[in-house]
Amino acid sequence: MDFNLIKGLAKPADTKIVLLVLDGLGGASSEKDGFTELETAHTPHLDEIAGQSLCGLHQPIGAGITPGSGPAHLALFGYDPVKYHVGRGVLAALGVDFDLQAADVAARGNFCTLDNGGVVQDRRAGRISSEKNQELLNLLDDIELPGAEVFLRVVKEYRFLLVLRGENLSEAVGGTDPQGVGKKPRDPEPLAPEAEHTAGLVARFVEQVRSKLADQHPANMVLLRGFSQRPDWPQMPEVCRLKAAGIASYPMYLGLAKLVGMEVLKAGENLADPFQVLEEAWADFDFFFVHLKPMDSAGEDGDFDRKVKLIEQADALVPRLFRLDPDVVIITGDHSTPAKLAYHSWHPVPVLLWSRHCRPDRVDRFGERALINGGLGPRFPAVDLMPLALANARRLEKFGA
Amino acid sequence: MDFNLIKGLAKPADTKIVLLVLDGLGGASSEKDGFTELETAHTPHLDEIAGQSLCGLHQPIGAGITPGSGPAHLALFGYDPVKYHVGRGVLAALGVDFDLQAADVAARGNFCTLDNGGVVQDRRAGRISSEKNQELLNLLDDIELPGAEVFLRVVKEYRFLLVLRGENLSEAVGGTDPQGVGKKPRDPEPLAPEAEHTAGLVARFVEQVRSKLADQHPANMVLLRGFSQRPDWPQMPEVCRLKAAGIASYPMYLGLAKLVGMEVLKAGENLADPFQVLEEAWADFDFFFVHLKPMDSAGEDGDFDRKVKLIEQADALVPRLFRLDPDVVIITGDHSTPAKLAYHSWHPVPVLLWSRHCRPDRVDRFGERALINGGLGPRFPAVDLMPLALANARRLEKFGA
Repeated sequence: MDFNLIKGLAKPADTKIVLLVLDGLGGASSEKDGFTELETAHTPHLDEIAGQSLCGLHQPIGAGITPGSGPAHLALFGYDPVKYHVGRGVLAALGVDFDLQAADVAARGNFCTLDNGGVVQDRRAGRISSEKNQELLNLLDDIELPGAEVFLRVVKEYRFLLVLRGENLSEAVGGTDPQGVGKKPRDPEPLAPEAEHTAGLVARFVEQVRSKLADQHPANMVLLRGFSQRPDWPQMPEVCRLKAAGIASYPMYLGLAKLVGMEVLKAGENLADPFQVLEEAWADFDFFFVHLKPMDSAGEDGDFDRKVKLIEQADALVPRLFRLDPDVVIITGDHSTPAKLAYHSWHPVPVLLWSRHCRPDRVDRFGERALINGGLGPRFPAVDLMPLALANARRLEKFGA
Repeated sequence: MDFNLIKGLAKPADTKIVLLVLDGLGGASSEKDGFTELETAHTPHLDEIAGQSLCGLHQPIGAGITPGSGPAHLALFGYDPVKYHVGRGVLAALGVDFDLQAADVAARGNFCTLDNGGVVQDRRAGRISSEKNQELLNLLDDIELPGAEVFLRVVKEYRFLLVLRGENLSEAVGGTDPQGVGKKPRDPEPLAPEAEHTAGLVARFVEQVRSKLADQHPANMVLLRGFSQRPDWPQMPEVCRLKAAGIASYPMYLGLAKLVGMEVLKAGENLADPFQVLEEAWADFDFFFVHLKPMDSAGEDGDFDRKVKLIEQADALVPRLFRLDPDVVIITGDHSTPAKLAYHSWHPVPVLLWSRHCRPDRVDRFGERALINGGLGPRFPAVDLMPLALANARRLEKFGA
């Protein structure tokens, strides 16, 4: 959305908006009968609401682009994900709930295997376990750098987070990952004059790691990339004049919500848990981002049937949301994760937007092919959803006279 | 539209284009049966033409944005309404047919009520009548400013137009309207160094008003905003190589047509009057913007049935237009004005584009839901209409070899 335009038009109102995200909702046609996961699922509640809604399919980033979770959610929150870029380091920090300060520099780290000649043999060090990762980080615990604190956190398996905290740090440092085997790790290069100090610190860090891990196997070195600082973006609640809450069980999604200015409310890991948090917080906010994770995990596991079942369980929870008497409800995914591909994909993502003022279309089934004929269109930009939510909540003034 | 691109491709041709605007045409689903005003109306002629046309729904400004009449019409004329902004002062001048000169600065004024402490009690002075407005303007008639002429015109009720004419005037002056009650009017601030002279003149004007209206009630002060000068824009007839006429009964729409370079032809206030003007001027122009106002007024009054009836009356006039043997006809609204909301709205606006070369879609009913499946799409940018009209009129060369 155009932040200047929306900020100039947004006004407070006594209305509540819910953005319910079923992570990885979109699917692809199964080879069995050609139906997607959502088309296969029995979803009486979603179908009924679709019949009273404005429907369609959104593209999170653009034609053919498969989004990561970060950019996909930013698009739902109204941020052009190509312009508002979150570095991998920052995403890693969000994912482990690290309290990143404004001046910190974060990087995503991989343990890797070097051969005797110092050449990368395996960029993932045989995919060591998270437990092994923690053991190795313990060995690095006493690394000291002049004028900067070092924080290290396990992310998952061979992946970890590095954070430097100190004065005059810059994110403009090139990664050390050569992005392929058979090459030596790169030296951390300053990408701008003001980054020389930081690049020097990273070089010292890397050299100490090299000596401390020399006898380890397979993880005898680290590769670093995605040096980044917490971005200083327009804050969605301020732009839209909303009190906004993000409700999720995974730190990464809470972190993304926090990045755009929402208050965050941690939910338990059961599918229904975010709904309980929503009910308890209902009086206190105008906007709720509610995140349900497991359909994405099922898609990533290539488990079509489990994804179908989870969508059916989510469908059964939808009436609980409507009993709160919301003014605007958007139900969608952040991206598609077809079980057939066992991975995120570029396929447009199912959406319904319900409000008393939405002017429903003729779609009466919440499934990919039915949604193509919806009033939102078959491939509309995900960033359009926030302004539409605000309009339907009567929270935007007229533009011009 | 991209003015450079279109200007490079536009060529003259012996073809005629009509853009028929039914102001506020789009509606919202009634609570009775879910049909909109247009869906409820019996429109045999529009339906028949829709069956031979390219159909769809346009967004005047963008997703969720409710347009004012100014920007909505500019979009239909091919001007990106966020980039080509018309100030409220200029719009007010257009609306009362004031002959604004290039160097004039116009502002929109409100009579308001101040309490004894000089704080705004009512930003609209109890919505005084237009007659009272004229009486008060008469009291201000002898205000003199050094080096600038002052013009004052009634707009409607509590609203008036102020125009300053002189040397070295600038539009970069902040409004005096505090945009809420319980606050004092603001001082007119220069928003750029070159505006100090103008801001000083406005301050002197405001002080004289204060003393001249001191004994009046409820209108004892004025609030000014939207200081603006006539914009110097690319002229549509020149860009598109068309001789263009604007036909309307309301000065505001004639003014907008004039702003983009059309010749203007005033019509009477009956629904059929613009058609008579069109017939009389048919030989003299290539492009006709024909504006019918009353469906918008019915929508603003919340009168669903009157809006339905007016749409049916407009439908009956459509054959008269086709008897002229036009080459391209676009029938649309500038924005939606659902009777249900009694106000302009963000809902996409019905469009049909008829020509012998349009490659019709399968839509055979001119109603919001049927149009979703049209070839123009359910939410296409209104600025696309002008280039499509030119193409269908065979007035654009091939781009590139």
